[in-house]
Amino acid sequence: MSPRFSVDRLEHPIVQAPMGGGPSTPALAAAVSAAGGLGFLAAGYRTPEAAREDIREVRMRTERPFGVNLFVPSPPSDVAERVERYAQGLRAEAERYGVALGDPRHDDDGWRDKLTLLAEERVAVVSFTFGCPEAALVEELHRAGSAVWVTVTTATEAAIAARAGADALIVQGVEAGGHRGSFDDRAPGDLGLLALLQLVADTVDLPLVAAGGLAHGRALAAVLAAGADAAAFGTAFMLTPEAGTSPAHRAALAGDAGTALTRAFTGRTARGLVNRFMREHGAHAPSAYPEVHHLTAPVRTAARSAGDPDGFHLWAGQAYGLAEELPAAELVERLAREAREAIRRMPSP
Amino acid sequence: MSPRFSVDRLEHPIVQAPMGGGPSTPALAAAVSAAGGLGFLAAGYRTPEAAREDIREVRMRTERPFGVNLFVPSPPSDVAERVERYAQGLRAEAERYGVALGDPRHDDDGWRDKLTLLAEERVAVVSFTFGCPEAALVEELHRAGSAVWVTVTTATEAAIAARAGADALIVQGVEAGGHRGSFDDRAPGDLGLLALLQLVADTVDLPLVAAGGLAHGRALAAVLAAGADAAAFGTAFMLTPEAGTSPAHRAALAGDAGTALTRAFTGRTARGLVNRFMREHGAHAPSAYPEVHHLTAPVRTAARSAGDPDGFHLWAGQAYGLAEELPAAELVERLAREAREAIRRMPSP
Repeated sequence: MSPRFSVDRLEHPIVQAPMGGGPSTPALAAAVSAAGGLGFLAAGYRTPEAAREDIREVRMRTERPFGVNLFVPSPPSDVAERVERYAQGLRAEAERYGVALGDPRHDDDGWRDKLTLLAEERVAVVSFTFGCPEAALVEELHRAGSAVWVTVTTATEAAIAARAGADALIVQGVEAGGHRGSFDDRAPGDLGLLALLQLVADTVDLPLVAAGGLAHGRALAAVLAAGADAAAFGTAFMLTPEAGTSPAHRAALAGDAGTALTRAFTGRTARGLVNRFMREHGAHAPSAYPEVHHLTAPVRTAARSAGDPDGFHLWAGQAYGLAEELPAAELVERLAREAREAIRRMPSP
Repeated sequence: MSPRFSVDRLEHPIVQAPMGGGPSTPALAAAVSAAGGLGFLAAGYRTPEAAREDIREVRMRTERPFGVNLFVPSPPSDVAERVERYAQGLRAEAERYGVALGDPRHDDDGWRDKLTLLAEERVAVVSFTFGCPEAALVEELHRAGSAVWVTVTTATEAAIAARAGADALIVQGVEAGGHRGSFDDRAPGDLGLLALLQLVADTVDLPLVAAGGLAHGRALAAVLAAGADAAAFGTAFMLTPEAGTSPAHRAALAGDAGTALTRAFTGRTARGLVNRFMREHGAHAPSAYPEVHHLTAPVRTAARSAGDPDGFHLWAGQAYGLAEELPAAELVERLAREAREAIRRMPSP
């Protein structure tokens, strides 16, 4: 059996962060992997069948390794009353977009079926967000030949993931767009990437993939200097033609709104461009994922279809203003080239 | 006339961040400058006479260049009622520590007198926090031979400082301990250092000094790779014997409390260790600086003297857990050595 994938095998230490709900596509993952980085599929929100189709499509496009990201299930919400009150406050949104609110149900996003699928498909890397899989599950994936990466936002989470047998950690700073990977959404933390990298490197001895607010090759060079083995870029890939980013979202990323953390859209802390929905509902949103995700989904889908950037989540990291419309393979090459230039120009300490 | 100080003249690209209210001392500034970094005095809160004494003491200890930091005055608070309500909520604190609350007065911290002093003393660098001096004032300091550095927290602030004639920018990420340098405290921003560095480097062409959550030489290497010309370390110097950090503050920095941003202590957003005072009053504190600073000062002084870490501001950056008790010169050497090692170990992008 071949050894598990290790990040130092990459031609370029560049990972395409999984971006659920549309932006991540098999075409994007394949383009990044083919260019010498590591592409990722986002299996969260997908049915197991759709996730399998995605994996197969990547494999038709490239023989290079790639990863699949899963959401670790959350326990059912214990704040049903707060969810109900939040739903009442969203009635005008449903009317505005001519839809009914969704059922704020709990589910585990097809957790077991997706794990079975991954054990069969034997992808190079399986990464986790929102928690740490148990050691037995990590072993199961190891037996299937997959490396296991866990997203962490604190040194404590890093230590937990190391004990569970993770092969590498995705170290996510507060700058990151989309959901915070925090194990506990009630304490989502606020550590900036560079502070977090130092704290995690001081705690565990595992390969680290730095994520959050990275857009330029200078930042790739920076996290490599800080001790990371690779950098993950999310928002930077959102304007590539291979990404499934919606037109309204693409247009918003070309603007200059600020970003903020909010639970308004999904009941879990995530960073996006500040818009009307976030301003009006953010303060009232409970920590209840995926209940709130399901509750707001019809509104968000309708707003996105209508091209209204004020009615759905516009995930974006803090450096989104530097994202460029550029084919994914060219972006990988550009980031690597900029990083090499940045290293050449460094003053001696 | 000799050219103004430029950061590339430093033996090590290491700046000791000014830390007002005690930790910054002439001994600390002199030790850092003598070790090949750039020490800083914090003239904020000091009388002009005391600031002059500080400058002379540094000069007795070293002939190397050093800097002096000034707070740019804020306009008087327009939320007197909120300050009054806040004061009412603090009565129990005053009783607890057996003092009277301070007068929530406005002042400009001796702005003009300190500028006159600096024009006379001709220090190598004058840095500004809480705003940008007007171009005429920058010129005045240039005529005195001083380089002018401005603290910025957004790309917009960077552009303003560049237009005013700043020689370099201190780029402060949200990870930083102590006060945010934001020009407008009502919009203090939340950009992480690495995201901010990329955005600022994309906006202005000035030497950059990166600040916020830096504690290990790996982080120095990281910000140099990201395009900074030097790194500023604040909390990292707080445990040095040369620092004036109080015993209760030193003890708290050896603990594991989280940090958070708060206006509870001074009416201006600052990061410190979460303690009782912050938890109980943070949500009610208005943006009113220095009114709230003066209001709470007697309580904080009494709590600090009593060694009670729950009653005063425990400024700390996000990576404070990595700060070590070590003479300042040794810390400068250690940071430089760690940074060189980090650069040697970088994988090729």
